[in-house]
Amino acid sequence: MTDAAFGPDADVHPDATLGDGEDAPAIGDEPTIRSGTVVYADVEIGDRFTTGHGALVRGPTTIGDDVLVGTHAVVDGACELGDGVSLQTGVYLPRETTVGDRAFFGPHAVLANDPYPLRTDADLAGPTVEADASVGANATLLPGVTVGERAFVAANAVVTEDVPPATLAVGAPATTEPLPEDLTGGNRR
Amino acid sequence: MTDAAFGPDADVHPDATLGDGEDAPAIGDEPTIRSGTVVYADVEIGDRFTTGHGALVRGPTTIGDDVLVGTHAVVDGACELGDGVSLQTGVYLPRETTVGDRAFFGPHAVLANDPYPLRTDADLAGPTVEADASVGANATLLPGVTVGERAFVAANAVVTEDVPPATLAVGAPATTEPLPEDLTGGNRR
Amino acid sequence: MTDAAFGPDADVHPDATLGDGEDAPAIGDEPTIRSGTVVYADVEIGDRFTTGHGALVRGPTTIGDDVLVGTHAVVDGACELGDGVSLQTGVYLPRETTVGDRAFFGPHAVLANDPYPLRTDADLAGPTVEADASVGANATLLPGVTVGERAFVAANAVVTEDVPPATLAVGAPATTEPLPEDLTGGNRR
Repeated sequence: MTDAAFGPDADVHPDATLGDGEDAPAIGDEPTIRSGTVVYADVEIGDRFTTGHGALVRGPTTIGDDVLVGTHAVVDGACELGDGVSLQTGVYLPRETTVGDRAFFGPHAVLANDPYPLRTDADLAGPTVEADASVGANATLLPGVTVGERAFVAANAVVTEDVPPATLAVGAPATTEPLPEDLTGGNRR
Repeated sequence: MTDAAFGPDADVHPDATLGDGEDAPAIGDEPTIRSGTVVYADVEIGDRFTTGHGALVRGPTTIGDDVLVGTHAVVDGACELGDGVSLQTGVYLPRETTVGDRAFFGPHAVLANDPYPLRTDADLAGPTVEADASVGANATLLPGVTVGERAFVAANAVVTEDVPPATLAVGAPATTEPLPEDLTGGNRR
Repeated sequence: MTDAAFGPDADVHPDATLGDGEDAPAIGDEPTIRSGTVVYADVEIGDRFTTGHGALVRGPTTIGDDVLVGTHAVVDGACELGDGVSLQTGVYLPRETTVGDRAFFGPHAVLANDPYPLRTDADLAGPTVEADASVGANATLLPGVTVGERAFVAANAVVTEDVPPATLAVGAPATTEPLPEDLTGGNRR
């Protein structure tokens, strides 16, 4: 479904689904939306939005400019993503996730929103990943945690507590240590 | 493909695929089946069945009432799911998985059916998750294990041996400990 | 889209997407390509290619005979797969992955291509999985590692260094030990 309102630089595959037939999401200029991707109506997205195949964005969600939602990645609703955010293949963001500018999520990173298994308080807000943070492939973030600016979560790590800014979190459950020299540059984009 | 036989309370997306064009699965009342979802013909499902987008249910499989198969979740055939089972986004159930009533699977939980890597006996049955058990996000269950009633498998845990009822399994490989007070209530639905 | 050029033994679902409308991938005899699967144009595949639903193969990629790309599995481009390779549900192969004959990947195994988090050198080639190797369910391979012939990566392992041939890698980060007797037979197909 190519929407002429997008302008000539839009690339929206006919097999992408935007909205529900009555209402459509508000999407900025020059999107590239690949086949099989579904974006719900109550979603606002900025310019130069790019998706892989079969991605899903549920609302109510707001997304900034220059964001990538990769193949099979899922934004499960009530989320807020800044500019330059990158979700690689298969990433899962549950409801109420907040993501800062240029945060990066490696393939299959999963943020959990179910208060199980290790928390007493079942009224946690969703996780927060702050600007320029990186979450490694296949990592798991438990509900309610905050990953600080320029922090780094290693592949397959399981984050059960907040990760301070510019810190490396590694292991399961993750422990934190100072960020190695070569990872202190933020997410260059 | 909306099947009039479902009745007026059915919500089956035209881009969902039920059956193979000749035979159709037997699905109960008031289903909500979202776009991209595929249900094979040799499947029986109860009432109030709900799916996310792009889910897959292969047969021969029987599923009870009030079951959720989430976005991109896969039931790979020869499975038996009870009532009130919940598979969140991206869950994988291999062939011959047995799931009891109200069992819950967090996003990306994966049950393995390949006898590799840590087992000698290659003729294992599929895994079994009993009533009211919870499997955390991104956890891995090896073939042939049984997770007992009301047991709890932590996020990212790797279950290599049976988990007794009402026990918490955590770590990789998972070790077990008594269930904390706040997790002893079963899966409230 | 069933291509008559495939011959009468081909089984290509009408909802599979091969190419971009102008160019098509080169696929051998007797393929079975299921609904929702996408294969880009700059891909060459041998005979008896089989996919699950919603798989994705990007180019430029070459794939041998008797290969399975399972449901939701992703080959992200610039990859080389030999004969008899098996990617189970949800496997992720990043760009520049090299896979030898009969290598096996359990469900949700993820190979990472991002130089983060634990590497100084950002110019790593993609990972290499050699002939007859097995990668367990939900395992993670970091960029640039080589898993040797007949090696075995345990479920949920995190491979940060090369795995020698005929060795078992287990844990996160993975440590290696001699392959148990019952796993020394290679991948019987």
